[in-house]
Amino acid sequence: MSLPSFVRLIEVGPRDGLQNEAQPISVADKVRLVDALSAAGLGYIEVGSFVSPKWVPQMAGSAEVFAQIQRKPGVTYGALAPNLRGFEDALAAGVKEVAVFAAASEAFSQRNINCSIKESLERFAPIMEAAKRNGVSVRGYVSCVLGCPYQGAVKPEQVAWVARELYAMGCYEVSLGDTIGTGTAGATRKLFEVVSADVPRDKLAGHFHDTYGQAMANLYASLLEGIAVFDSSIAGLGGCPYAKGASGNVATEDVLYLLNGLGIETGVDLDALIVAGRQICDVLGRPTGSRVAKARSAQ
Amino acid sequence: MSLPSFVRLIEVGPRDGLQNEAQPISVADKVRLVDALSAAGLGYIEVGSFVSPKWVPQMAGSAEVFAQIQRKPGVTYGALAPNLRGFEDALAAGVKEVAVFAAASEAFSQRNINCSIKESLERFAPIMEAAKRNGVSVRGYVSCVLGCPYQGAVKPEQVAWVARELYAMGCYEVSLGDTIGTGTAGATRKLFEVVSADVPRDKLAGHFHDTYGQAMANLYASLLEGIAVFDSSIAGLGGCPYAKGASGNVATEDVLYLLNGLGIETGVDLDALIVAGRQICDVLGRPTGSRVAKARSAQ
Repeated sequence: MSLPSFVRLIEVGPRDGLQNEAQPISVADKVRLVDALSAAGLGYIEVGSFVSPKWVPQMAGSAEVFAQIQRKPGVTYGALAPNLRGFEDALAAGVKEVAVFAAASEAFSQRNINCSIKESLERFAPIMEAAKRNGVSVRGYVSCVLGCPYQGAVKPEQVAWVARELYAMGCYEVSLGDTIGTGTAGATRKLFEVVSADVPRDKLAGHFHDTYGQAMANLYASLLEGIAVFDSSIAGLGGCPYAKGASGNVATEDVLYLLNGLGIETGVDLDALIVAGRQICDVLGRPTGSRVAKARSAQ
Repeated sequence: MSLPSFVRLIEVGPRDGLQNEAQPISVADKVRLVDALSAAGLGYIEVGSFVSPKWVPQMAGSAEVFAQIQRKPGVTYGALAPNLRGFEDALAAGVKEVAVFAAASEAFSQRNINCSIKESLERFAPIMEAAKRNGVSVRGYVSCVLGCPYQGAVKPEQVAWVARELYAMGCYEVSLGDTIGTGTAGATRKLFEVVSADVPRDKLAGHFHDTYGQAMANLYASLLEGIAVFDSSIAGLGGCPYAKGASGNVATEDVLYLLNGLGIETGVDLDALIVAGRQICDVLGRPTGSRVAKARSAQ
Protein backbone atom coordinates (compact mmCIF):
# COMPACT_ATOMS: atom_id res chain seq x y z
CA MET A 1 0.00 0.00 0.00
CA SER A 2 1.41 3.41 -0.93
CA LEU A 3 1.46 6.35 1.45
CA PRO A 4 -1.39 8.87 1.28
CA SER A 5 -0.60 12.02 -0.72
CA PHE A 6 -2.54 14.29 1.64
CA VAL A 7 -3.05 14.03 5.40
CA ARG A 8 -5.63 15.94 7.41
CA LEU A 9 -4.31 17.05 10.78
CA ILE A 10 -6.87 17.38 13.57
CA GLU A 11 -5.49 19.85 16.10
CA VAL A 12 -6.64 18.85 19.58
CA GLY A 13 -4.37 21.12 21.61
CA PRO A 14 -6.94 23.74 22.70
CA ARG A 15 -9.27 20.98 23.99
CA ASP A 16 -7.56 17.63 24.70
CA GLY A 17 -4.32 19.49 25.34
CA LEU A 18 -5.36 22.36 27.61
CA GLN A 19 -7.89 20.15 29.42
CA ASN A 20 -4.99 18.10 30.76
CA GLU A 21 -2.72 20.98 31.70
CA ALA A 22 -2.52 21.88 35.37
CA GLN A 23 -3.87 25.43 35.31
CA PRO A 24 -6.77 26.94 33.38
CA ILE A 25 -5.89 29.80 31.03
CA SER A 26 -7.95 32.85 30.03
CA VAL A 27 -10.48 33.02 27.21
CA ALA A 28 -8.29 35.64 25.50
CA ASP A 29 -5.28 33.29 25.50
CA LYS A 30 -7.41 30.44 24.13
CA VAL A 31 -8.74 32.67 21.35
CA ARG A 32 -5.23 33.75 20.44
CA LEU A 33 -4.12 30.11 20.30
CA VAL A 34 -7.02 29.01 18.08
CA ASP A 35 -6.48 31.93 15.71
CA ALA A 36 -2.74 31.23 15.51
CA LEU A 37 -3.49 27.59 14.68
CA SER A 38 -5.93 28.44 11.89
CA ALA A 39 -3.46 31.01 10.54
CA ALA A 40 -0.84 28.22 10.38
CA GLY A 41 -3.10 26.38 7.96
CA LEU A 42 -4.75 23.76 10.16
CA GLY A 43 -8.12 22.78 8.76
CA TYR A 44 -9.62 21.33 11.92
CA ILE A 45 -9.25 22.70 15.43
CA GLU A 46 -10.91 21.22 18.46
CA VAL A 47 -11.62 24.42 20.32
CA GLY A 48 -13.20 23.37 23.59
CA SER A 49 -15.54 21.16 25.51
CA PHE A 50 -19.05 21.79 26.74
CA VAL A 51 -18.88 20.27 30.18
CA SER A 52 -19.50 21.64 33.63
CA PRO A 53 -16.60 23.91 34.69
CA LYS A 54 -17.09 22.34 38.12
CA TRP A 55 -15.63 19.13 36.70
CA VAL A 56 -13.22 20.49 34.12
CA PRO A 57 -12.24 24.07 35.07
CA GLN A 58 -9.76 24.20 32.17
CA MET A 59 -12.66 24.09 29.72
CA ALA A 60 -14.64 26.97 31.29
CA GLY A 61 -15.51 29.70 28.82
CA SER A 62 -15.72 27.49 25.72
CA ALA A 63 -18.80 29.41 24.53
CA GLU A 64 -16.93 32.72 24.87
CA VAL A 65 -13.99 31.28 22.96
CA PHE A 66 -16.31 30.26 20.13
CA ALA A 67 -17.81 33.74 20.12
CA GLN A 68 -14.46 35.49 19.91
CA ILE A 69 -12.37 33.44 17.48
CA GLN A 70 -11.92 34.70 13.92
CA ARG A 71 -13.62 32.04 11.86
CA LYS A 72 -11.45 31.33 8.85
CA PRO A 73 -13.37 29.98 5.84
CA GLY A 74 -12.82 26.27 5.28
CA VAL A 75 -11.70 25.61 8.86
CA THR A 76 -13.75 23.31 11.09
CA TYR A 77 -13.98 24.40 14.71
CA GLY A 78 -15.03 21.39 16.76
CA ALA A 79 -16.08 20.87 20.37
CA LEU A 80 -16.48 17.90 22.65
CA ALA A 81 -20.08 17.29 23.70
CA PRO A 82 -20.17 14.48 26.23
CA ASN A 83 -23.96 14.60 26.72
CA LEU A 84 -27.15 16.21 25.40
CA ARG A 85 -26.87 19.17 27.74
CA GLY A 86 -23.33 19.77 26.43
CA PHE A 87 -24.57 19.40 22.87
CA GLU A 88 -27.28 22.02 23.41
CA ASP A 89 -24.78 24.43 24.91
CA ALA A 90 -22.47 23.83 21.94
CA LEU A 91 -25.34 24.44 19.54
CA ALA A 92 -26.20 27.70 21.30
CA ALA A 93 -22.55 28.74 20.94
CA GLY A 94 -22.77 28.28 17.16
CA VAL A 95 -20.78 25.04 17.01
CA LYS A 96 -21.20 23.19 13.70
CA GLU A 97 -19.27 20.04 14.60
CA VAL A 98 -19.09 18.07 17.82
CA ALA A 99 -17.23 15.01 19.01
CA VAL A 100 -18.43 12.15 21.21
CA PHE A 101 -16.23 9.88 23.21
CA ALA A 102 -16.48 6.13 23.93
CA ALA A 103 -13.96 3.66 25.35
CA ALA A 104 -12.90 0.35 23.83
CA SER A 105 -12.22 -0.99 27.30
CA GLU A 106 -15.11 -2.03 29.53
CA ALA A 107 -13.07 -1.37 32.67
CA PHE A 108 -12.12 2.12 31.50
CA SER A 109 -15.72 2.95 30.59
CA GLN A 110 -16.94 1.86 34.02
CA ARG A 111 -14.20 3.71 35.91
CA ASN A 112 -14.24 6.82 33.73
CA ILE A 113 -17.90 7.45 32.97
CA ASN A 114 -19.63 5.03 35.31
CA CYS A 115 -21.42 2.94 32.71
CA SER A 116 -20.82 0.11 30.28
CA ILE A 117 -19.64 0.76 26.72
CA LYS A 118 -23.09 -0.27 25.48
CA GLU A 119 -24.80 2.21 27.80
CA SER A 120 -22.41 4.98 26.73
CA LEU A 121 -23.27 4.32 23.09
CA GLU A 122 -27.00 4.40 23.91
CA ARG A 123 -26.55 7.79 25.53
CA PHE A 124 -25.15 9.16 22.28
CA ALA A 125 -28.38 8.36 20.40
CA PRO A 126 -30.22 11.59 21.37
CA ILE A 127 -27.07 13.62 20.58
CA MET A 128 -26.85 12.02 17.13
CA GLU A 129 -30.53 12.77 16.51
CA ALA A 130 -30.26 16.36 17.67
CA ALA A 131 -27.10 16.80 15.59
CA LYS A 132 -28.84 15.50 12.48
CA ARG A 133 -31.83 17.79 13.05
CA ASN A 134 -29.54 20.79 13.40
CA GLY A 135 -27.11 20.01 10.59
CA VAL A 136 -24.22 19.45 13.00
CA SER A 137 -21.66 16.80 12.03
CA VAL A 138 -20.34 14.40 14.66
CA ARG A 139 -16.89 12.88 15.01
CA GLY A 140 -16.39 9.80 17.19
CA TYR A 141 -13.49 9.04 19.48
CA VAL A 142 -12.63 5.62 20.80
CA SER A 143 -10.15 5.57 23.68
CA CYS A 144 -7.89 2.78 25.00
CA VAL A 145 -7.61 1.14 21.59
CA LEU A 146 -4.16 -0.32 22.27
CA GLY A 147 -4.30 -0.83 26.00
CA CYS A 148 -6.20 0.13 29.12
CA PRO A 149 -4.78 1.30 32.45
CA TYR A 150 -7.23 -0.99 34.32
CA GLN A 151 -7.68 -4.12 32.22
CA GLY A 152 -4.41 -4.13 30.25
CA ALA A 153 -4.88 -5.69 26.82
CA VAL A 154 -7.76 -4.61 24.58
CA LYS A 155 -8.71 -6.78 21.60
CA PRO A 156 -8.82 -5.17 18.13
CA GLU A 157 -12.21 -6.87 17.61
CA GLN A 158 -13.55 -4.96 20.61
CA VAL A 159 -12.29 -1.69 19.13
CA ALA A 160 -13.88 -2.66 15.81
CA TRP A 161 -17.23 -3.15 17.53
CA VAL A 162 -17.21 0.28 19.18
CA ALA A 163 -15.95 1.99 16.01
CA ARG A 164 -18.62 0.25 13.92
CA GLU A 165 -21.36 1.32 16.33
CA LEU A 166 -20.23 4.95 16.25
CA TYR A 167 -19.99 4.88 12.46
CA ALA A 168 -23.40 3.25 12.11
CA MET A 169 -24.89 5.88 14.43
CA GLY A 170 -23.76 8.60 12.07
CA CYS A 171 -20.25 9.63 13.08
CA TYR A 172 -18.64 10.62 9.78
CA GLU A 173 -15.18 9.67 11.10
CA VAL A 174 -13.91 7.61 14.02
CA SER A 175 -10.62 8.42 15.72
CA LEU A 176 -8.85 5.53 17.42
CA GLY A 177 -6.91 6.70 20.46
CA ASP A 178 -3.97 5.01 22.16
CA THR A 179 -4.84 6.81 25.37
CA ILE A 180 -2.03 5.40 27.51
CA GLY A 181 0.55 5.20 24.74
CA THR A 182 1.44 1.55 25.25
CA GLY A 183 0.80 0.51 21.64
CA THR A 184 3.63 -0.38 19.30
CA ALA A 185 3.88 -0.36 15.51
CA GLY A 186 2.86 -3.96 14.84
CA ALA A 187 -0.20 -3.74 17.09
CA THR A 188 -1.16 -0.47 15.43
CA ARG A 189 -1.10 -2.04 11.97
CA LYS A 190 -3.08 -5.03 13.18
CA LEU A 191 -5.63 -2.69 14.77
CA PHE A 192 -6.32 -0.80 11.54
CA GLU A 193 -6.35 -4.03 9.60
CA VAL A 194 -9.08 -5.45 11.85
CA VAL A 195 -11.13 -2.27 12.31
CA SER A 196 -11.10 -1.45 8.58
CA ALA A 197 -13.10 -4.61 7.94
CA ASP A 198 -15.99 -2.75 9.64
CA VAL A 199 -15.25 0.93 9.01
CA PRO A 200 -13.60 2.10 5.77
CA ARG A 201 -9.99 3.24 6.18
CA ASP A 202 -10.82 6.72 4.90
CA LYS A 203 -13.29 7.10 7.76
CA LEU A 204 -10.67 6.26 10.42
CA ALA A 205 -8.15 8.49 12.18
CA GLY A 206 -5.20 7.76 14.46
CA HIS A 207 -4.65 9.47 17.81
CA PHE A 208 -1.32 8.62 19.45
CA HIS A 209 0.29 9.44 22.75
CA ASP A 210 4.05 9.45 23.14
CA THR A 211 4.06 8.26 26.75
CA TYR A 212 6.31 5.31 25.85
CA GLY A 213 8.05 7.02 22.93
CA GLN A 214 6.03 5.10 20.34
CA ALA A 215 3.76 7.77 18.84
CA MET A 216 5.84 8.58 15.78
CA ALA A 217 6.52 4.94 14.89
CA ASN A 218 2.81 4.18 15.34
CA LEU A 219 1.92 7.11 13.16
CA TYR A 220 4.25 5.93 10.40
CA ALA A 221 2.82 2.41 10.77
CA SER A 222 -0.68 3.89 10.34
CA LEU A 223 0.33 5.75 7.19
CA LEU A 224 1.55 2.44 5.80
CA GLU A 225 -1.95 1.09 6.53
CA GLY A 226 -3.48 3.86 4.44
CA ILE A 227 -4.67 6.02 7.34
CA ALA A 228 -4.63 9.70 6.36
CA VAL A 229 -6.13 11.58 9.33
CA PHE A 230 -4.29 12.14 12.60
CA ASP A 231 -5.05 13.93 15.83
CA SER A 232 -2.16 15.81 17.41
CA SER A 233 -1.58 18.56 19.92
CA ILE A 234 0.39 21.76 19.43
CA ALA A 235 3.60 21.71 21.54
CA GLY A 236 2.48 18.32 22.86
CA LEU A 237 -0.02 20.07 25.15
CA GLY A 238 -1.89 17.75 27.46
CA GLY A 239 0.96 16.07 29.16
CA CYS A 240 3.91 18.05 30.33
CA PRO A 241 6.84 15.82 29.37
CA TYR A 242 8.50 16.69 32.67
CA ALA A 243 5.64 15.73 34.91
CA LYS A 244 4.84 12.41 36.45
CA GLY A 245 2.05 10.58 34.68
CA ALA A 246 2.38 12.68 31.56
CA SER A 247 -0.37 11.84 29.11
CA GLY A 248 2.00 12.63 26.28
CA ASN A 249 -0.05 13.83 23.33
CA VAL A 250 2.10 13.64 20.23
CA ALA A 251 3.21 17.14 19.17
CA THR A 252 1.72 18.53 15.95
CA GLU A 253 5.07 20.06 14.99
CA ASP A 254 6.80 16.66 15.13
CA VAL A 255 4.04 14.97 13.14
CA LEU A 256 4.18 17.70 10.50
CA TYR A 257 7.98 17.34 10.29
CA LEU A 258 7.53 13.63 9.48
CA LEU A 259 4.81 14.32 6.91
CA ASN A 260 6.88 17.07 5.26
CA GLY A 261 9.81 14.66 5.08
CA LEU A 262 7.63 12.05 3.42
CA GLY A 263 6.43 14.62 0.88
CA ILE A 264 2.85 14.37 2.12
CA GLU A 265 0.73 17.51 1.72
CA THR A 266 -1.07 18.98 4.75
CA GLY A 267 -1.54 22.67 3.97
CA VAL A 268 0.10 23.51 7.30
CA ASP A 269 3.12 25.77 7.71
CA LEU A 270 5.72 24.44 10.15
CA ASP A 271 7.26 27.81 11.05
CA ALA A 272 3.88 29.33 11.87
CA LEU A 273 3.02 26.27 13.93
CA ILE A 274 6.21 26.59 15.94
CA VAL A 275 5.40 30.24 16.70
CA ALA A 276 1.88 29.27 17.85
CA GLY A 277 3.36 26.58 20.09
CA ARG A 278 5.90 28.94 21.58
CA GLN A 279 3.21 31.49 22.44
CA ILE A 280 0.99 29.03 24.30
CA CYS A 281 3.96 27.55 26.16
CA ASP A 282 4.89 31.04 27.32
CA VAL A 283 1.36 31.50 28.64
CA LEU A 284 1.47 28.16 30.45
CA GLY A 285 5.03 28.74 31.65
CA ARG A 286 6.08 25.29 30.51
CA PRO A 287 8.67 24.05 28.02
CA THR A 288 7.42 22.74 24.70
CA GLY A 289 6.75 19.04 24.30
CA SER A 290 7.73 19.24 20.64
CA ARG A 291 11.23 18.03 19.82
CA VAL A 292 11.16 19.93 16.53
CA ALA A 293 10.30 23.18 18.30
CA LYS A 294 13.03 22.51 20.85
CA ALA A 295 15.63 21.77 18.18
CA ARG A 296 14.66 24.86 16.21
CA SER A 297 14.93 27.12 19.25
CA ALA A 298 18.44 25.75 19.91
CA GLN A 299 19.66 26.78 16.46
CA MET B 1 10.10 -7.84 3.45
CA SER B 2 9.34 -9.34 6.84
CA LEU B 3 10.71 -7.96 10.11
CA PRO B 4 13.88 -9.52 11.54
CA SER B 5 13.29 -12.09 14.29
CA PHE B 6 16.34 -11.00 16.29
CA VAL B 7 17.89 -7.56 16.70
CA ARG B 8 21.35 -6.84 18.09
CA LEU B 9 21.41 -3.72 20.23
CA ILE B 10 24.70 -1.82 20.34
CA GLU B 11 24.79 0.14 23.58
CA VAL B 12 26.66 3.39 23.01
CA GLY B 13 25.71 5.17 26.24
CA PRO B 14 29.04 4.82 28.10
CA ARG B 15 30.93 6.27 25.10
CA ASP B 16 28.79 8.29 22.66
CA GLY B 17 26.44 9.11 25.51
CA LEU B 18 28.75 10.16 28.34
CA GLN B 19 31.11 11.89 25.90
CA ASN B 20 28.35 14.39 25.16
CA GLU B 21 27.23 14.96 28.74
CA ALA B 22 28.37 18.16 30.40
CA GLN B 23 30.43 16.78 33.25
CA PRO B 24 32.89 13.87 33.38
CA ILE B 25 32.05 11.07 35.80
CA SER B 26 34.34 8.79 37.78
CA VAL B 27 35.87 5.52 36.60
CA ALA B 28 33.94 3.71 39.32
CA ASP B 29 30.61 5.08 38.07
CA LYS B 30 31.48 4.12 34.50
CA VAL B 31 32.39 0.59 35.57
CA ARG B 32 29.13 0.26 37.47
CA LEU B 33 27.21 1.43 34.39
CA VAL B 34 28.95 -0.99 32.01
CA ASP B 35 28.42 -3.91 34.40
CA ALA B 36 24.75 -3.02 34.85
CA LEU B 37 24.33 -2.93 31.07
CA SER B 38 25.93 -6.33 30.53
CA ALA B 39 23.84 -7.73 33.38
CA ALA B 40 20.72 -6.48 31.58
CA GLY B 41 21.64 -8.72 28.67
CA LEU B 42 23.21 -6.32 26.18
CA GLY B 43 25.67 -8.13 23.94
CA TYR B 44 27.68 -5.13 22.80
CA ILE B 45 28.73 -2.18 24.93
CA GLU B 46 30.82 0.70 23.67
CA VAL B 47 32.80 1.33 26.82
CA GLY B 48 35.01 4.30 26.04
CA SER B 49 37.22 6.18 23.66
CA PHE B 50 40.99 6.32 23.43
CA VAL B 51 41.52 9.99 22.80
CA SER B 52 43.45 12.66 24.62
CA PRO B 53 41.64 13.67 27.83
CA LYS B 54 42.75 17.19 26.94
CA TRP B 55 40.22 17.14 24.08
CA VAL B 56 37.54 14.91 25.56
CA PRO B 57 37.77 14.99 29.38
CA GLN B 58 34.61 12.85 29.64
CA MET B 59 36.54 9.91 28.15
CA ALA B 60 39.51 10.08 30.54
CA GLY B 61 40.22 6.80 32.29
CA SER B 62 38.94 4.50 29.53
CA ALA B 63 41.88 2.11 30.12
CA GLU B 64 41.03 1.94 33.84
CA VAL B 65 37.39 1.27 32.99
CA PHE B 66 38.42 -1.63 30.75
CA ALA B 67 40.63 -2.98 33.52
CA GLN B 68 37.89 -2.90 36.13
CA ILE B 69 34.75 -4.08 34.36
CA GLN B 70 33.54 -7.62 34.93
CA ARG B 71 33.86 -9.19 31.51
CA LYS B 72 30.80 -11.28 30.89
CA PRO B 73 31.31 -14.14 28.41
CA GLY B 74 29.77 -13.45 25.02
CA VAL B 75 29.66 -9.69 25.49
CA THR B 76 31.70 -7.44 23.19
CA TYR B 77 33.26 -4.43 24.90
CA GLY B 78 34.14 -1.90 22.21
CA ALA B 79 36.08 1.35 22.16
CA LEU B 80 36.45 4.23 19.75
CA ALA B 81 39.94 4.54 18.30
CA PRO B 82 40.13 7.69 16.19
CA ASN B 83 43.81 7.22 15.24
CA LEU B 84 46.74 4.78 15.49
CA ARG B 85 47.88 6.19 18.82
CA GLY B 86 44.38 5.60 20.19
CA PHE B 87 44.35 2.12 18.71
CA GLU B 88 47.62 1.25 20.43
CA ASP B 89 46.33 2.54 23.75
CA ALA B 90 43.18 0.48 23.27
CA LEU B 91 45.23 -2.59 22.46
CA ALA B 92 47.33 -2.09 25.58
CA ALA B 93 44.10 -1.88 27.59
CA GLY B 94 43.05 -5.30 26.30
CA VAL B 95 40.40 -4.05 23.90
CA LYS B 96 39.33 -6.68 21.35
CA GLU B 97 37.08 -4.51 19.21
CA VAL B 98 37.43 -0.91 18.12
CA ALA B 99 35.36 1.50 16.08
CA VAL B 100 36.46 4.06 13.53
CA PHE B 101 34.49 7.11 12.51
CA ALA B 102 34.07 8.78 9.09
CA ALA B 103 31.60 11.39 7.87
CA ALA B 104 29.39 11.17 4.80
CA SER B 105 29.50 14.94 4.49
CA GLU B 106 32.60 16.62 3.09
CA ALA B 107 31.82 19.84 4.97
CA PHE B 108 31.44 17.99 8.27
CA SER B 109 34.66 16.05 7.74
CA GLN B 110 36.58 19.26 7.09
CA ARG B 111 35.06 21.13 10.04
CA ASN B 112 35.17 18.21 12.45
CA ILE B 113 38.47 16.47 11.76
CA ASN B 114 40.20 18.93 9.46
CA CYS B 115 40.56 16.67 6.45
CA SER B 116 38.60 15.38 3.48
CA ILE B 117 36.60 12.18 3.72
CA LYS B 118 39.14 10.48 1.44
CA GLU B 119 42.02 11.54 3.71
CA SER B 120 40.14 10.33 6.79
CA LEU B 121 39.65 6.93 5.16
CA GLU B 122 43.37 6.78 4.26
CA ARG B 123 44.24 7.46 7.89
CA PHE B 124 42.27 4.36 8.91
CA ALA B 125 44.51 2.09 6.78
CA PRO B 126 47.24 1.64 9.42
CA ILE B 127 44.59 1.06 12.11
CA MET B 128 42.95 -1.63 9.96
CA GLU B 129 46.35 -3.28 9.40
CA ALA B 130 47.30 -3.18 13.06
CA ALA B 131 43.87 -4.49 14.00
CA LYS B 132 44.21 -7.41 11.60
CA ARG B 133 47.69 -8.24 12.93
CA ASN B 134 46.37 -8.22 16.50
CA GLY B 135 43.10 -10.05 15.93
CA VAL B 136 41.03 -6.99 16.80
CA SER B 137 37.75 -6.53 14.93
CA VAL B 138 36.74 -3.10 13.66
CA ARG B 139 33.32 -1.54 13.39
CA GLY B 140 32.80 1.49 11.13
CA TYR B 141 30.63 4.52 11.78
CA VAL B 142 29.43 6.92 9.14
CA SER B 143 28.03 10.19 10.45
CA CYS B 144 25.70 12.75 8.84
CA VAL B 145 24.01 10.09 6.69
CA LEU B 146 20.68 11.95 6.55
CA GLY B 147 21.83 15.54 6.79
CA CYS B 148 24.76 17.73 7.75
CA PRO B 149 24.74 20.83 9.97
CA TYR B 150 27.02 22.62 7.49
CA GLN B 151 26.06 21.47 4.01
CA GLY B 152 22.44 20.42 4.57
CA ALA B 153 21.47 17.55 2.29
CA VAL B 154 23.70 14.47 1.94
CA LYS B 155 23.15 12.13 -1.00
CA PRO B 156 22.57 8.41 -0.26
CA GLU B 157 25.14 7.63 -2.98
CA GLN B 158 27.74 9.55 -1.01
CA VAL B 159 26.91 7.53 2.11
CA ALA B 160 27.13 4.35 0.04
CA TRP B 161 30.62 5.31 -1.11
CA VAL B 162 31.92 5.86 2.45
CA ALA B 163 30.21 2.72 3.75
CA ARG B 164 31.59 0.66 0.89
CA GLU B 165 35.11 1.94 1.54
CA LEU B 166 34.91 1.09 5.25
CA TYR B 167 33.52 -2.35 4.47
CA ALA B 168 36.18 -2.99 1.83
CA MET B 169 38.88 -1.92 4.31
CA GLY B 170 37.76 -4.64 6.70
CA CYS B 171 35.06 -3.17 8.93
CA TYR B 172 32.80 -6.16 9.65
CA GLU B 173 29.79 -3.85 10.10
CA VAL B 174 29.03 -0.26 9.18
CA SER B 175 26.70 1.86 11.32
CA LEU B 176 24.91 4.68 9.52
CA GLY B 177 24.31 7.62 11.85
CA ASP B 178 21.73 10.38 11.53
CA THR B 179 23.95 12.65 13.60
CA ILE B 180 21.68 15.69 13.60
CA GLY B 181 18.40 13.79 13.63
CA THR B 182 16.87 15.52 10.61
CA GLY B 183 16.12 12.30 8.70
CA THR B 184 12.58 11.04 8.25
CA ALA B 185 11.20 7.59 7.55
CA GLY B 186 11.09 7.75 3.76
CA ALA B 187 14.65 9.06 3.49
CA THR B 188 15.79 6.35 5.90
CA ARG B 189 14.32 3.61 3.72
CA LYS B 190 15.81 5.12 0.58
CA LEU B 191 19.19 5.33 2.32
CA PHE B 192 19.29 1.63 3.19
CA GLU B 193 17.96 0.74 -0.24
CA VAL B 194 20.84 2.59 -1.92
CA VAL B 195 23.62 1.62 0.50
CA SER B 196 22.65 -2.05 0.50
CA ALA B 197 23.56 -2.22 -3.19
CA ASP B 198 27.17 -1.84 -1.99
CA VAL B 199 27.16 -3.31 1.53
CA PRO B 200 24.93 -6.27 2.44
CA ARG B 201 22.00 -5.37 4.68
CA ASP B 202 23.19 -7.75 7.38
CA LYS B 203 26.44 -5.75 7.59
CA LEU B 204 24.61 -2.46 8.18
CA ALA B 205 23.37 -0.87 11.39
CA GLY B 206 21.16 2.16 12.10
CA HIS B 207 22.07 4.91 14.55
CA PHE B 208 19.31 7.45 15.13
CA HIS B 209 19.02 10.65 17.07
CA ASP B 210 15.68 11.90 18.32
CA THR B 211 16.50 15.61 17.96
CA TYR B 212 13.45 16.15 15.71
CA GLY B 213 11.36 13.34 17.24
CA GLN B 214 11.98 11.02 14.30
CA ALA B 215 14.25 8.32 15.77
CA MET B 216 11.58 5.73 16.51
CA ALA B 217 9.82 6.11 13.15
CA ASN B 218 13.22 5.88 11.41
CA LEU B 219 14.04 2.79 13.40
CA TYR B 220 10.78 1.12 12.45
CA ALA B 221 11.38 2.13 8.81
CA SER B 222 14.83 0.49 9.02
CA LEU B 223 13.36 -2.73 10.41
CA LEU B 224 11.03 -2.79 7.41
CA GLU B 225 14.16 -2.55 5.24
CA GLY B 226 15.60 -5.64 6.92
CA ILE B 227 18.09 -3.84 9.15
CA ALA B 228 18.62 -5.80 12.37
CA VAL B 229 21.35 -3.93 14.28
CA PHE B 230 20.78 -0.62 16.04
CA ASP B 231 22.89 1.69 18.15
CA SER B 232 21.15 3.30 21.10
CA SER B 233 22.02 4.98 24.36
CA ILE B 234 20.81 4.07 27.84
CA ALA B 235 18.50 6.79 29.21
CA GLY B 236 19.12 8.72 26.00
CA LEU B 237 22.53 9.78 27.34
CA GLY B 238 24.42 12.14 25.09
CA GLY B 239 21.89 14.86 24.78
CA CYS B 240 20.00 16.03 27.76
CA PRO B 241 16.47 16.46 26.41
CA TYR B 242 16.14 19.65 28.41
CA ALA B 243 19.26 21.34 27.12
CA LYS B 244 19.64 23.58 24.11
CA GLY B 245 21.27 21.83 21.17
CA ALA B 246 20.50 18.40 22.54
CA SER B 247 22.12 15.72 20.42
CA GLY B 248 19.25 13.41 21.28
CA ASN B 249 20.55 9.86 21.16
CA VAL B 250 17.57 7.54 21.00
CA ALA B 251 17.06 5.81 24.37
CA THR B 252 17.76 2.07 24.51
CA GLU B 253 14.73 1.54 26.76
CA ASP B 254 12.39 3.05 24.17
CA VAL B 255 13.93 1.02 21.33
CA LEU B 256 13.63 -2.17 23.37
CA TYR B 257 9.98 -1.37 24.16
CA LEU B 258 9.28 -1.17 20.43
CA LEU B 259 11.16 -4.40 19.68
CA ASN B 260 9.40 -6.22 22.52
CA GLY B 261 6.08 -5.01 21.15
CA LEU B 262 6.97 -6.32 17.70
CA GLY B 263 7.90 -9.69 19.21
CA ILE B 264 11.53 -9.31 18.12
CA GLU B 265 14.10 -11.09 20.30
CA THR B 266 17.04 -9.12 21.74
CA GLY B 267 18.09 -11.00 24.87
CA VAL B 268 17.80 -7.77 26.84
CA ASP B 269 15.66 -7.33 29.97
CA LEU B 270 13.69 -4.06 30.04
CA ASP B 271 13.35 -3.84 33.81
CA ALA B 272 17.09 -4.30 34.37
CA LEU B 273 17.78 -1.72 31.68
CA ILE B 274 15.52 0.81 33.38
CA VAL B 275 17.36 0.28 36.68
CA ALA B 276 20.73 0.79 34.95
CA GLY B 277 19.43 3.99 33.37
CA ARG B 278 18.08 5.31 36.65
CA GLN B 279 21.44 4.73 38.36
CA ILE B 280 23.46 6.65 35.80
CA CYS B 281 20.93 9.50 35.71
CA ASP B 282 21.26 9.79 39.48
CA VAL B 283 25.04 10.07 39.10
CA LEU B 284 24.68 12.73 36.41
CA GLY B 285 21.91 14.52 38.28
CA ARG B 286 19.78 14.69 35.17
CA PRO B 287 16.35 13.33 34.30
CA THR B 288 16.17 10.33 32.01
CA GLY B 289 15.80 10.86 28.27
CA SER B 290 13.82 7.62 28.01
CA ARG B 291 10.07 8.03 27.77
CA VAL B 292 9.56 4.42 28.84
CA ALA B 293 11.65 4.94 31.97
CA LYS B 294 9.76 8.15 32.70
CA ALA B 295 6.36 6.49 32.24
CA ARG B 296 7.38 3.54 34.41
CA SER B 297 8.59 5.78 37.24
CA ALA B 298 5.26 7.62 37.17
CA GLN B 299 3.30 4.43 37.76
